[in-house]
Amino acid sequence: MSEIKSGSEALLKFLNGLQPLSKEIIDFAIEETFSISVKKNTLIDSVQKNSKECVFFVISGLVRGFIIDEEKEITTWLAHENSLIGTIRNPGNIAPTYFEHLQAIENSNLLVLPYNFIDRLYIQFPETNILGRKLLAIHFNMSQERSILSRIPSAEARYKQFKENHPKIKFRIPLKYLATYLGMRIETLSRIRNKTKLKP
Amino acid sequence: MSEIKSGSEALLKFLNGLQPLSKEIIDFAIEETFSISVKKNTLIDSVQKNSKECVFFVISGLVRGFIIDEEKEITTWLAHENSLIGTIRNPGNIAPTYFEHLQAIENSNLLVLPYNFIDRLYIQFPETNILGRKLLAIHFNMSQERSILSRIPSAEARYKQFKENHPKIKFRIPLKYLATYLGMRIETLSRIRNKTKLKP
Repeated sequence: MSEIKSGSEALLKFLNGLQPLSKEIIDFAIEETFSISVKKNTLIDSVQKNSKECVFFVISGLVRGFIIDEEKEITTWLAHENSLIGTIRNPGNIAPTYFEHLQAIENSNLLVLPYNFIDRLYIQFPETNILGRKLLAIHFNMSQERSILSRIPSAEARYKQFKENHPKIKFRIPLKYLATYLGMRIETLSRIRNKTKLKP
Repeated sequence: MSEIKSGSEALLKFLNGLQPLSKEIIDFAIEETFSISVKKNTLIDSVQKNSKECVFFVISGLVRGFIIDEEKEITTWLAHENSLIGTIRNPGNIAPTYFEHLQAIENSNLLVLPYNFIDRLYIQFPETNILGRKLLAIHFNMSQERSILSRIPSAEARYKQFKENHPKIKFRIPLKYLATYLGMRIETLSRIRNKTKLKP
């Protein structure tokens, strides 16, 4: 793992599209955030000690969130370039039932946004609450899509929907990770994928 | 359906716990929101014409969100007292894949928060962006729980988890609605429920 001071440009460009940022905010963000490179298959928890105390912006690569249920890993979240992943604190003070572990499934560059930085940002620059609100609305909708996807009864329809929602990453996720995300056995996913390939 | 000017007290009490509200904000909210009573089984879309242009706060009762997939209704969201339900706009301008219909599954009182009111609130009282951000973080986490729940492989474990997460509503949802929410057949849910009842 290496820490580099750059990497915030991608996030700032993304955020500026949602809400114009002042020079002061940009300078503060560059000063207080840092990026890490994480090799494929690495658990983020193992390279970023306080990973439960920050949110990650994926500059490049692909990261999955997973829970452990009866000693089995279940993929619950997939985040590609220009999206956030991590524990979003609950102001309702309700502890999550499952802890989501994070793992790079490609060599990835992540920008680390510590809670401490986010809290100071909201206080020092109150207008960033607008940005936080918009980001959370986007991520609420992404979570809602994940939630709806997994309730579609037909395994084939779930895979089709996944491909439509995620054209950028549909072939970048190992079958064993994708199968639990789509709520099906690896064999079923493999069969559906082969069948789809045969279609003209 | 009847419209009554009261009902905002419950929402204001809930919001004030997250972020103290000024008298001006409270007066504006009382002026601009209204409540509707909806009979059990009624589709909210049928009583609130512009239901896609507002968010609902459940004052009393129980509302479900559902999608239609291959002519079958799939429950995707359950909202009880003191929670919000509706279409959360996506500032990322990505249209949702599925439209979630809303239906009262008990006689319910709902406070209607039109988008138009929410937009003016954010502009006239910028501090309400803090509140919006906190509410969205709470609802992100609730959506995340729904998303994780449906990916737990064992049907029995999904039902157990649902009961733990929702002690207030676990026996208030008709089996046919709960079964699709939990991704299992009605017969399976019925069998699991009877088995659980028999346990000491």
